[in-house]
Amino acid sequence: MADKKLLMFECDYQEGAHPAVIERLAETNLEQEPGYGFDRFSESAREKIRKACDAPDADVFFLAGGSQTNATMIDALLKQYEGVISSSEGHIATNEAGAVEFSGHKVIEVPSHGGKVEADDVAATVESYNAKTNRDHLVMPGMVYISQPTECGTLYSKAELTELRRVCRKYGLPLYADGARLAYALACPENDVTLADLASLTDAFYIGGTKCGALLGEALVIPQHDLVPHMFTIIKQHGALLAKGRAAGVQFDALFTDDLYVRIAAHAIEKAARIRGALQEKGYEFALENPTNQVFVVLDGDTRDRLARDVVLEPWEDLPDGRHVMRIATSWATTHEDVDRLIALL
Amino acid sequence: MADKKLLMFECDYQEGAHPAVIERLAETNLEQEPGYGFDRFSESAREKIRKACDAPDADVFFLAGGSQTNATMIDALLKQYEGVISSSEGHIATNEAGAVEFSGHKVIEVPSHGGKVEADDVAATVESYNAKTNRDHLVMPGMVYISQPTECGTLYSKAELTELRRVCRKYGLPLYADGARLAYALACPENDVTLADLASLTDAFYIGGTKCGALLGEALVIPQHDLVPHMFTIIKQHGALLAKGRAAGVQFDALFTDDLYVRIAAHAIEKAARIRGALQEKGYEFALENPTNQVFVVLDGDTRDRLARDVVLEPWEDLPDGRHVMRIATSWATTHEDVDRLIALL
Amino acid sequence: MADKKLLMFECDYQEGAHPAVIERLAETNLEQEPGYGFDRFSESAREKIRKACDAPDADVFFLAGGSQTNATMIDALLKQYEGVISSSEGHIATNEAGAVEFSGHKVIEVPSHGGKVEADDVAATVESYNAKTNRDHLVMPGMVYISQPTECGTLYSKAELTELRRVCRKYGLPLYADGARLAYALACPENDVTLADLASLTDAFYIGGTKCGALLGEALVIPQHDLVPHMFTIIKQHGALLAKGRAAGVQFDALFTDDLYVRIAAHAIEKAARIRGALQEKGYEFALENPTNQVFVVLDGDTRDRLARDVVLEPWEDLPDGRHVMRIATSWATTHEDVDRLIALL
Amino acid sequence: MADKKLLMFECDYQEGAHPAVIERLAETNLEQEPGYGFDRFSESAREKIRKACDAPDADVFFLAGGSQTNATMIDALLKQYEGVISSSEGHIATNEAGAVEFSGHKVIEVPSHGGKVEADDVAATVESYNAKTNRDHLVMPGMVYISQPTECGTLYSKAELTELRRVCRKYGLPLYADGARLAYALACPENDVTLADLASLTDAFYIGGTKCGALLGEALVIPQHDLVPHMFTIIKQHGALLAKGRAAGVQFDALFTDDLYVRIAAHAIEKAARIRGALQEKGYEFALENPTNQVFVVLDGDTRDRLARDVVLEPWEDLPDGRHVMRIATSWATTHEDVDRLIALL
Repeated sequence: MADKKLLMFECDYQEGAHPAVIERLAETNLEQEPGYGFDRFSESAREKIRKACDAPDADVFFLAGGSQTNATMIDALLKQYEGVISSSEGHIATNEAGAVEFSGHKVIEVPSHGGKVEADDVAATVESYNAKTNRDHLVMPGMVYISQPTECGTLYSKAELTELRRVCRKYGLPLYADGARLAYALACPENDVTLADLASLTDAFYIGGTKCGALLGEALVIPQHDLVPHMFTIIKQHGALLAKGRAAGVQFDALFTDDLYVRIAAHAIEKAARIRGALQEKGYEFALENPTNQVFVVLDGDTRDRLARDVVLEPWEDLPDGRHVMRIATSWATTHEDVDRLIALL
Repeated sequence: MADKKLLMFECDYQEGAHPAVIERLAETNLEQEPGYGFDRFSESAREKIRKACDAPDADVFFLAGGSQTNATMIDALLKQYEGVISSSEGHIATNEAGAVEFSGHKVIEVPSHGGKVEADDVAATVESYNAKTNRDHLVMPGMVYISQPTECGTLYSKAELTELRRVCRKYGLPLYADGARLAYALACPENDVTLADLASLTDAFYIGGTKCGALLGEALVIPQHDLVPHMFTIIKQHGALLAKGRAAGVQFDALFTDDLYVRIAAHAIEKAARIRGALQEKGYEFALENPTNQVFVVLDGDTRDRLARDVVLEPWEDLPDGRHVMRIATSWATTHEDVDRLIALL
Repeated sequence: MADKKLLMFECDYQEGAHPAVIERLAETNLEQEPGYGFDRFSESAREKIRKACDAPDADVFFLAGGSQTNATMIDALLKQYEGVISSSEGHIATNEAGAVEFSGHKVIEVPSHGGKVEADDVAATVESYNAKTNRDHLVMPGMVYISQPTECGTLYSKAELTELRRVCRKYGLPLYADGARLAYALACPENDVTLADLASLTDAFYIGGTKCGALLGEALVIPQHDLVPHMFTIIKQHGALLAKGRAAGVQFDALFTDDLYVRIAAHAIEKAARIRGALQEKGYEFALENPTNQVFVVLDGDTRDRLARDVVLEPWEDLPDGRHVMRIATSWATTHEDVDRLIALL
Repeated sequence: MADKKLLMFECDYQEGAHPAVIERLAETNLEQEPGYGFDRFSESAREKIRKACDAPDADVFFLAGGSQTNATMIDALLKQYEGVISSSEGHIATNEAGAVEFSGHKVIEVPSHGGKVEADDVAATVESYNAKTNRDHLVMPGMVYISQPTECGTLYSKAELTELRRVCRKYGLPLYADGARLAYALACPENDVTLADLASLTDAFYIGGTKCGALLGEALVIPQHDLVPHMFTIIKQHGALLAKGRAAGVQFDALFTDDLYVRIAAHAIEKAARIRGALQEKGYEFALENPTNQVFVVLDGDTRDRLARDVVLEPWEDLPDGRHVMRIATSWATTHEDVDRLIALL
């Protein structure tokens, strides 16, 4: 009766951690280490991340989750009267229950271009602010938030990121990248933005663990040491300091050993590519083109209902024409068999 | 050269998780479950906790850490113009980097009686507030925060808690208990406050995991269902929602199987008792009497320095007479051998 | 050389208070009264406002300014996880330096229809929120903010307001109206929304003083007594409590004597109508049609520059075609002579 | 029957403004000036204040009230993870409804020495913070708040202030003085701290208007230009920006003309001295010695009740011995006749 079980393709965090990560947690479990990230596992993970990012001076902190990391880092970078520029589809603008506003800051939305923020829109936002005679009555644009990959699964190219960086520099805006699914960007053949590029082109970014092989945890990287003085206390103030820093440190240490972080993501990308190929072959339409581990397919109501009998997909958006955008997500844990079964059902 | 390694007795979160917890994480690792606490492990853990608390309608949420749980629950219970009454030694008053103030609320300090809040002090605080002609210009006392065991390792008796509850009820103040080390209270022979007592005598409390056998995680228990509407969103807003709720759920499911939570704490209590006995025998003085897993011993400078060559203790307080209060903490992981070695050194 | 002085038409708060208001301040100046709004002038003003609003149970508070009143009342009405729906041109969305976000709440923008929020957009926003499977991760719509007249000088009709109210009721959303320039709405021949209508159709609104005849001060009206318990303390917490409540109370007492508030606004409306007529006659184009004391005229660059030599107008918006929207504002203080001079220059 | 009217001595803000201030408001009333403090009256007042403070580069802002000014300036000076050191009797610690916490900051209380903060206590607080191994988990002391005169009516001497300044400098803490009743300090024969001293010894202070001759308004002085960039926007964000800045500007312009501010306070000091002399003569006891316009007298219950039939005093504190501390306040408006009548009643 095993085939009675529904296939699950609705998200990329349905399993625990990659087996190598769990194994490493078990192995190191009884070693005694100090708390709050001062353990040698966290130290080792930080060192590996610095190397992978070619950022020898980077401050690296491990937090439990993505929304928390975003809210904490944005609050750390902004002055009190500043807001954060984000795409209108940015996670902070849509899906974080107002965590940024909770710490007192406005999210200043710019148009989403397949999830991406365009440098021109940033420039226009700042120029428009600067041009206003009453600008001192407004929220000042204070930084830019992007996601790599974006919430739509698209990627910034190195050229796009360089241009964003140039504009941010011009206007004195820190650039911060949410890397909740960063592994799936790094593993993409289409991707030309390395960790070292992120470290040189942003002021801060986080390397997502929760959705990329860890049980939980995000590695926040601030390439310039002490860019934010007392970041440790700010993290504590936001309730985001892990007493057992090792819980995340051990996992990132494992993920950054032998390139595990990218290798397991490549598996997911390959599975997503197979699914995309099958969909295309069978004449399905995509809501948008994107190369990472999330596939956004357009289904009519009948097909959606038929598939729902065997496979769980994530409802993404209802189109004006009555059709539905559904998300199919793969992960490091997606099996060949499940992909075969899904394709057979299409 | 094994004896070159320092003995570590400074805190109770130096290891990972209890082996049974790690094992359960490994066993369940590849099972696919939905996120955000809707997985069946979390559901099972919630059900076991409800049973252990004799609170069948309780809302139970799993968060990553203690300061986070405190800040979130306090913000959820208070109205905007209210403050939280806490002992002057309460964790929220001293050690959380202002996380309560960060969400806009004042911590109203009352005297610490060995870490405990006395019902009379709560009554006096509210009466004094009520008596003031300008009380509408002041922060209104809105709830009471206590810890069980307290930050000093002492315990509220059931009688004390009942009296606190009575006073809180009288003045309409929710009562909230921080149970970061709750297992060590429950396992104490001296303790007469059960989980069911906590559930009937408080409006909310959390069952600490991070310091009591879990890798991380706290189980927030709100005995009355929907006492706080939209608590899920409030948790998300505070950046405290775990995408992989299972990460905590599996652990609490293990800890609440076969009474593991209390059994492993009993081990720590027994070890602390042995250390206390040895100290007493050798004529050491205690900074305060307390029965849980933290021993607060007074050392003169020479003894402190001599011991520091072999064992790490936590500096707690410098006394006016030049002596030092040091904390010795045991945990579920403290070995018989380490206790022997420590005693030999005393 | 009197004509060297520039004509000033850029805003409606360039003078002090209406002479009758100043006179009343002078007359009552040395009478001893208690502070914080408990003086008999404030009490008298409250009573007159309750009568004018046909709201005998209303709570009425006097605050110093509009942004302050908005931020305080919105924070008072919202639960912590809720946001406020506003037109994208709403003052709170654009011109208050993020004061709403500063108290932790998101401004949820809906399209501006000449400055107005349409009931359908409110319904669609809530329905869309409700339809989302992940809605507990989002900011919940918690109230609706409108302005009467709007920031564009337009007016809600009673029918529109009634429909908005119906939708708000349906979804449990308090409705709040910013009346910074309310006098100019009330004095408009086109207006069919009375103070009593506002009191019965909204949950709170403020009667603007600063821009309508007072030196400063806004009268916040909450028709249902104790709708917000401890509003006094919330006002104090926001730094908005006037120690000398009389400073505002005396002014509103004067403004609500013999209908002064509306009478002096009628003067401004008549002046604006004359200017509108002259502009129309001379073939000028309006950026939008509106009947209150603000005229939004479209000028080409040459005309703008020519006029700027003699008259100060407020730059409102630069159009894509290179032309400029300029605001001409009249007030209770606008003189016949100044209007003549302005018309002669057009 | 005029003597049926109760004598009112409970506070110093029972009247409107000093007649010269009201007169100036009336005189300038119809002159057209821009808003938000850019009017020439505000500019003139700023210039006069700069001169009086011997601080030619000072930024000067006019706000409506004292709690507002405190909350705004403290939030402007602190980093997010910092708290403000205050005497336990400081206005921000006791009487501002948690406005400082509302903007996210903890008030760190030190002992009150007749209302004053002692330099040694500041040093001890910082040293203790620095000595803690877990200091990064605590709220960092970020500035010092004092009042001149204090809430107890006492005065800092220039020597005390200089010592406080030295300690603040040593630890990098901005020093801020609440001058709600500053005129009454300046007018005291015992006082040796001038406005220029305040400007050179603090980083910011405010010159109170509401309690010292104005209808309302406080002049916030930041001696070093641009010490806080974008202070204007921070004021707006706190809801504290006056649209008609002139409302406060005209008043301060009058108060700083011909030394009116100090002259009218001298009147109050002289009246307080007469009352103090009479009390002393008749054997009354003072709760504390202080030279300003507030007299804190100890009354037994019978005397309190007897006096209450004819004069309103402010209940200040109930003593353990059953007696009562009552405040008698004089102001610029206190008449010779009322003082005579009060003394006759004693």
